Amino acid sequence: MKDRAHHPIDPWRLRETELDLDDLAQSESLFALSNGHIGLRGNLDEGEPFAFPGTYLNSFYERRPLPYAEAGYGYPESGQTLVDVTNGKLIRLLVDDSPLDLRYGELHSHERSLDFRDGVLHRELDWTSPGGKRVKVQSRRLVSLTQRAVAAVEYIVEPLEESARFVVQSELVANETQPRLSDDPRVAAILDQPLQAVSSDGDLEEVVLMHRTRSSAQLMAAGMAHKVECTERYELDVDVRDDWARTTVICELKPGQRLRVVKIIAYGWSSLRSETAIGDQVAAALASAKFSGWDGLVQQQKEFLDDFWDAADIEVHGHPELQQAARFALFHVLQAGARAERRAIPSKGLTGAGYDGHTFWDTEGYVLPVLTYTMPDAAGDALRWRHSTLELAKERAHVLGLKGSAFPWRTIRGQECSGYWPAGTAAFHINADIADAVNRYYVATGDEQFIEDVGLELLVETARLWISLGHHDRHGAWHIPGVTGPDEYSAVADDNVFTNLMAARNLRIAAETAARHPVKARELGVDVEEEAAWRDAAADVYIPYDEELGVHPQSEGFTGYAEWDFEASRGKYPLMMHAPYFELYRRQVIKQADLMLATYWCGDRFTPEEKARNFDYYERLTVRDSSLSACVQAVMAAEVGHLDLAYDYAYEAALIDLLDLHHNTGDGLHMASLAGAWTALVAGFGGLRERDGHLCFDPQLPDGMTELAFSIRWRGVRLRVDIHHKKATYAIHDGPDAKITLSHEGEEITVAVDKPVTRPIHKRKPILPRPTQPPGREPMSALGRNLPT
Amino acid sequence: MKDRAHHPIDPWRLRETELDLDDLAQSESLFALSNGHIGLRGNLDEGEPFAFPGTYLNSFYERRPLPYAEAGYGYPESGQTLVDVTNGKLIRLLVDDSPLDLRYGELHSHERSLDFRDGVLHRELDWTSPGGKRVKVQSRRLVSLTQRAVAAVEYIVEPLEESARFVVQSELVANETQPRLSDDPRVAAILDQPLQAVSSDGDLEEVVLMHRTRSSAQLMAAGMAHKVECTERYELDVDVRDDWARTTVICELKPGQRLRVVKIIAYGWSSLRSETAIGDQVAAALASAKFSGWDGLVQQQKEFLDDFWDAADIEVHGHPELQQAARFALFHVLQAGARAERRAIPSKGLTGAGYDGHTFWDTEGYVLPVLTYTMPDAAGDALRWRHSTLELAKERAHVLGLKGSAFPWRTIRGQECSGYWPAGTAAFHINADIADAVNRYYVATGDEQFIEDVGLELLVETARLWISLGHHDRHGAWHIPGVTGPDEYSAVADDNVFTNLMAARNLRIAAETAARHPVKARELGVDVEEEAAWRDAAADVYIPYDEELGVHPQSEGFTGYAEWDFEASRGKYPLMMHAPYFELYRRQVIKQADLMLATYWCGDRFTPEEKARNFDYYERLTVRDSSLSACVQAVMAAEVGHLDLAYDYAYEAALIDLLDLHHNTGDGLHMASLAGAWTALVAGFGGLRERDGHLCFDPQLPDGMTELAFSIRWRGVRLRVDIHHKKATYAIHDGPDAKITLSHEGEEITVAVDKPVTRPIHKRKPILPRPTQPPGREPMSALGRNLPT
Repeated sequence: MKDRAHHPIDPWRLRETELDLDDLAQSESLFALSNGHIGLRGNLDEGEPFAFPGTYLNSFYERRPLPYAEAGYGYPESGQTLVDVTNGKLIRLLVDDSPLDLRYGELHSHERSLDFRDGVLHRELDWTSPGGKRVKVQSRRLVSLTQRAVAAVEYIVEPLEESARFVVQSELVANETQPRLSDDPRVAAILDQPLQAVSSDGDLEEVVLMHRTRSSAQLMAAGMAHKVECTERYELDVDVRDDWARTTVICELKPGQRLRVVKIIAYGWSSLRSETAIGDQVAAALASAKFSGWDGLVQQQKEFLDDFWDAADIEVHGHPELQQAARFALFHVLQAGARAERRAIPSKGLTGAGYDGHTFWDTEGYVLPVLTYTMPDAAGDALRWRHSTLELAKERAHVLGLKGSAFPWRTIRGQECSGYWPAGTAAFHINADIADAVNRYYVATGDEQFIEDVGLELLVETARLWISLGHHDRHGAWHIPGVTGPDEYSAVADDNVFTNLMAARNLRIAAETAARHPVKARELGVDVEEEAAWRDAAADVYIPYDEELGVHPQSEGFTGYAEWDFEASRGKYPLMMHAPYFELYRRQVIKQADLMLATYWCGDRFTPEEKARNFDYYERLTVRDSSLSACVQAVMAAEVGHLDLAYDYAYEAALIDLLDLHHNTGDGLHMASLAGAWTALVAGFGGLRERDGHLCFDPQLPDGMTELAFSIRWRGVRLRVDIHHKKATYAIHDGPDAKITLSHEGEEITVAVDKPVTRPIHKRKPILPRPTQPPGREPMSALGRNLPT
Repeated sequence: MKDRAHHPIDPWRLRETELDLDDLAQSESLFALSNGHIGLRGNLDEGEPFAFPGTYLNSFYERRPLPYAEAGYGYPESGQTLVDVTNGKLIRLLVDDSPLDLRYGELHSHERSLDFRDGVLHRELDWTSPGGKRVKVQSRRLVSLTQRAVAAVEYIVEPLEESARFVVQSELVANETQPRLSDDPRVAAILDQPLQAVSSDGDLEEVVLMHRTRSSAQLMAAGMAHKVECTERYELDVDVRDDWARTTVICELKPGQRLRVVKIIAYGWSSLRSETAIGDQVAAALASAKFSGWDGLVQQQKEFLDDFWDAADIEVHGHPELQQAARFALFHVLQAGARAERRAIPSKGLTGAGYDGHTFWDTEGYVLPVLTYTMPDAAGDALRWRHSTLELAKERAHVLGLKGSAFPWRTIRGQECSGYWPAGTAAFHINADIADAVNRYYVATGDEQFIEDVGLELLVETARLWISLGHHDRHGAWHIPGVTGPDEYSAVADDNVFTNLMAARNLRIAAETAARHPVKARELGVDVEEEAAWRDAAADVYIPYDEELGVHPQSEGFTGYAEWDFEASRGKYPLMMHAPYFELYRRQVIKQADLMLATYWCGDRFTPEEKARNFDYYERLTVRDSSLSACVQAVMAAEVGHLDLAYDYAYEAALIDLLDLHHNTGDGLHMASLAGAWTALVAGFGGLRERDGHLCFDPQLPDGMTELAFSIRWRGVRLRVDIHHKKATYAIHDGPDAKITLSHEGEEITVAVDKPVTRPIHKRKPILPRPTQPPGREPMSALGRNLPT
């Protein structure tokens, strides 16, 4: 965990008041800017020092072979790795003869801040060069949320004590030198020199470099244009080569004078379109951004974010650090999803190349629930992207000998890229997670057109997969043997409760939706017999239960396994780095919420007592080696009445990257956990659930949190929920006729415009005492840092 | 399957009367010579054409990296591959200007034969060169069973119609060109130029080339010496380079004259010893073999084999092809094990580099039972080799977080080389198989010294492994979850019946043996508490049983899985090349005997009715994609009364390589299946079992087999069992006081020298009708070829 002394807490900003070169990797991720289309890591303007340089274009990848010591049928032969593309954010500065490099000279002050309301990364530094010249540099950087192909930098230099000569070199650099990444297999593969030059062209007005990836043959263009303001005479020069371009501004300034350079950067890429088309696209983006100008871009950014926060803000009273973290988290989820538009939302957004830049079930399972309630169009777009890969998923299912679609466990463009099938291909639940996201989006928006366009087909093809994966036994129970659930410390097990329940729901919803859209369903080849088969399998689904313990085994037989020796594992986390898979798989030890996630997402299938006992049982086995766990534990802890524990988990989920709790924030932010922070608060303390199309709340605040307020969108209406310990108020602020019917503690209430409804909250009593966690894996206390050993 | 028209059946020889260049790979394996220490594939003397050139030294390997798309804790990082070493069997011939190459000129006749009684590969050819000179070449080749570092070739040339000039080039060639092997992952990795020259030295008397492997740094020396006989003048020359040496004999002969060259080849290798020591060892081997001379070597070979066949021959009356195949099989098992002496016996012997030359559980499970009863010293040596790798196995267990020893699934020198853990590391049953082989050897020989030296420690450390792998449930039953049994179409399952029973036996025998050797046991740290824990776990072992079906599930839950769609798989075998593992694992489909093997090896744990029902159930699911299956199915088919089916399986096991039934005999012979042919006959139709230290027979012959006779060794005594349909005769022919007490059909009888005992055989009636196999996977009929489609 990181020392946050130089990160003063501010409710709307992430501030860093001192530069710690040892924390560069983390800060590059924290200060990353993205609109979901383009991503720029928070590298220093001058490029060096860096931990991982990073400029990413959504879905722009290179292919790499996947090797196997012993290959098997159906193993993917090639993987996909996100490419660090041409760096356009680079602005180097020479002060007289000294390059601005913070490892040399004397740094008097250095502050960076990222404001969640303006979406701009601010930097200001005061530095004396090794040559003795003191200068002040201010920069602002943005990735536009309104012009998705565009990023921009404003760079201002002024001498402080005496006059100096300044050379500003604004660059485009392809094939940047990459550092050696760690040996952790989870970290992205290195790609050396992935870009081959296609063309380079430029003048003082504008430069465009075009490259193509070696193996995947994807084309990209990066362009830059500048506006220079200087009271004194300056000279401008440009130099363009295959792999770099440099626009140079030279001037001499006295104290009180300054040089301001605005740099507009634009990217275009495609695996299909021609060089001319891509070049034109970049030129158009540059022209459009120049027309808006820096101030215009900043203004648009602010307006976009004002609108977002109006319907999505979350207020946490009584805990400034969590307040800040919650907004930080939501801001990055927004950045990841805002303009992804029919491209994938990777598990690290576009903040780093960790996990090769792949998308997992994190998107549908963790990120989309948040977007569905805060920015539903982005959720719809993400699902339309999934649909665009449906043919690949159908091909994959065919190769595997299955029906319907088998969506990839990890991918950039839709092809399965998992090199370890027990925790990849076998984790078929991703298909049910996608189906669930489709239905969640539909229920929250009522968007029937979406169902016609893509939703029904996704439901139908995933349902077909489940029918081919499951079977009835001789007593009529429907089983799914030999698949892997969410918990990655278990694999290839029979009748995983989560998977079975989610598959059954997938089948039921597919049947219902097909019945609601009969014409489209017939187009997709669905007949009444198929619908009946779906309903029957769903109704017959087998759910193992341990009568003696009164808990559900995570999968058949799980509760009969020996318990992991947690005492012996103190200090040896994550366990997967210290123990072989087979040993993890055959014992009672849980990496991440699995059965517990079933009790949250499929809560209607469990009684309150079952939830309490299951929580108590699994909490003691869960080590949270995955960042997907704490938020789910928060929600279920709150539901079963352990509000202080829920508070701790909500805090952990929200602070995961700010405190670098998994020691790999440098590889990119944990988007699912950040989204999970919202879920921990809204579904945990707000008690938000969607049950059979109805919006339900069952709020409860933990001690220490004085108030929690959040806004969500529900069927086009903005609802604000304001929770205190003893009451909750529901209000909407949309057009004159808007109203929402919802449930508060099971009571149906209707909220209309200007007619907020306030209802009392009855204190929930836990059925069981607060459980313990595996030794050394207790969460930090939200109310005072209490670190895991 | 191969056409055998050019392989006339002979009870004691493998003959090939015509050369088919398309079948070279297979014939190179079939005609391979080995003493377990050195192996020479049956390549043509002149080296070309070849399918796979092969000269192997037991355990002489090169290291190679094992790559993983996604690596995990405990995955082996490097593998071991058997090296094709310096080829010493090469003798090239020039007739005038034409090299003897059977692809050119005219071949009038070509015959090869391998005589199982003399252990010599004979070859005779009659060829007219492209230049029109007709010559006769005779060669004989042997790998000495008495001088284990030595091989020899006798090469005789004579002109047939007119005089000709002959140049004989006898060579040593390192780093031979290797063909590209198939893409089948099971086939060995290619190693390009694995040998680095260390020294080369030679004269007309003797040449020695010394090389070292690049990565594993193992040292080897190959030497050759010649004796030339010619009535005419001849010239001798020698040329020695780093990677080759050539002794040239030149002469001109008229019809009736001949040139005879005897070539002695010797090898020495070590990973520890010095260059000088290895060089001396080779020189000594050459000197010793020269002293014996060709005739001496041939004579010793004959005596060795006479002694072997006296105690091991197997006579099958009524089926000449099976008679030949049974002796062929036993001969190759002898070749693989005879002089391995503290080195591994690979699954392909030293007949090919398939499976990288690795040793699997095939050795203890299939090959050692045969050696134990026919050549017990070789079995003891093989187990002493296992013991020599015990420290590595203990290290491996430690890395895996387990106690005791975890022997490798596949290895050359003892390190785990498996790159796919679900069918490698997780197949812990190999440890029980080793323990069982220890006990089997002990029971058959009464060798207490062996137990003191190595046996007890192997039993103790494997028992410790099982204790750390198993656990008691809350009802006191002892389970082993999440391991892999013999069937490779299932993996990582709970309570595999075979594994549980074998582990329990391992524990029980360890406790009994420790109690019998208390001093040694205390030395190994075994106390009475540990012994008690072993006995308790063994007594409490959980064996799943499906009450409704009246059969044992292969592992918990197996009988509840959906059945494989065998109809859809017609023509798609082996299934692993057409379906992903997860799909194979989650359905009822069996690659190879698993539960059925449990009913054979642990037959005392099943009633006759259970055996009959289990056989009936599993026979319908078993596709025999593994060569380890048919022999076990033969034994159990015989036990449950399906004698004709047993006959078919015995035939399949014995003919696997002669008919190339698995289409990969070219990669080396299937030693386990060849050993299994003996087992199918002796344990199947002879009904040999060892129960609690007693030797038992329960013979039954199938229709068409008129008589089956075989000899085995039991506690130093040679027992001959002669079985007819209605009676069996037991006789011994050792020293005057020898006697054996055994059981015939459950009746205890004692056999003494010169007092054979004859007993009637009562016809066994099957409880159930003959079961079917998966469509297209029926065995060939032993009585008339009936091929699988």
